[in-house]
Amino acid sequence: MNVTFINPFLEAVMNVLKTMAFTEPTPGKPFLKKKSDVSQGDVTGVIGVTGPVKGSVALSFTEAAILHVVSSMFGEECREVNSEVEDAVGELSNMICGDARRMLEGMGHPFQGSIPSIISGKGHKITHIVPGPSIVMPFTVGNGASFFVEVCFEDSPAA
Amino acid sequence: MNVTFINPFLEAVMNVLKTMAFTEPTPGKPFLKKKSDVSQGDVTGVIGVTGPVKGSVALSFTEAAILHVVSSMFGEECREVNSEVEDAVGELSNMICGDARRMLEGMGHPFQGSIPSIISGKGHKITHIVPGPSIVMPFTVGNGASFFVEVCFEDSPAA
Repeated sequence: MNVTFINPFLEAVMNVLKTMAFTEPTPGKPFLKKKSDVSQGDVTGVIGVTGPVKGSVALSFTEAAILHVVSSMFGEECREVNSEVEDAVGELSNMICGDARRMLEGMGHPFQGSIPSIISGKGHKITHIVPGPSIVMPFTVGNGASFFVEVCFEDSPAA
Repeated sequence: MNVTFINPFLEAVMNVLKTMAFTEPTPGKPFLKKKSDVSQGDVTGVIGVTGPVKGSVALSFTEAAILHVVSSMFGEECREVNSEVEDAVGELSNMICGDARRMLEGMGHPFQGSIPSIISGKGHKITHIVPGPSIVMPFTVGNGASFFVEVCFEDSPAA
């Protein structure tokens, strides 16, 4: 996987959450996800990307993290993951992926993004079928709750 | 949404499950998914598609359905959703999406597919952020368990 594809997603998460949700998440140390590592979330937005190579981006929130983010975004306290919260995860996923794609295009790597799929359900697990590792970027928000962004790309285009 | 995009996915499900898993699922009546409809699964493969318009395809199995399919595919009984079963869902998603894309290309609509994301977790829910409806195609397998394929496309390219 071309690691220069990763940084734009980190920057895009910071940009979009600051602009849309008036929240500055604290980035943790990104790590390579091995087959045995399990990352779990309660609400996840998934966007497929296509371009020089295929990829996938998942933005996965614990319930506490997304309620914090969306409460700040809407300016009123959200207490449960409902369809408005799911829509917000879809919009955040779209904006983060769009902002990262804009940066990637500026670097000479034009990608297209798919319609986001939103998955909700307590403690679901995300995996990717990709020959190389995925990169996981963990973040924490103001109340200490966590979310992560998992990005994976093929090493090279399929024959 | 261009409904001519839908049929290739129905055909691809039948082709791929027959070829790969020696299983002929029984298709139910496809329906338009409204905002209030909830479709739940236990293991889901999601592939984003890009091309003339953006889209997303989700292949979502109940535990009983995927264990039936994968047991037939592997030729030995699978009793739990483990990483091999998740990998199989990824491969089935890839093959179904690839077969449908081949048919769509033959109809003059070339699409690219992303890396599949696999979500596992009891009773998770899938939604899409798309202006029009999604189409849900329900199926049942030999043991009466069900799975569904949800397909959505934008009406027209974003400006």
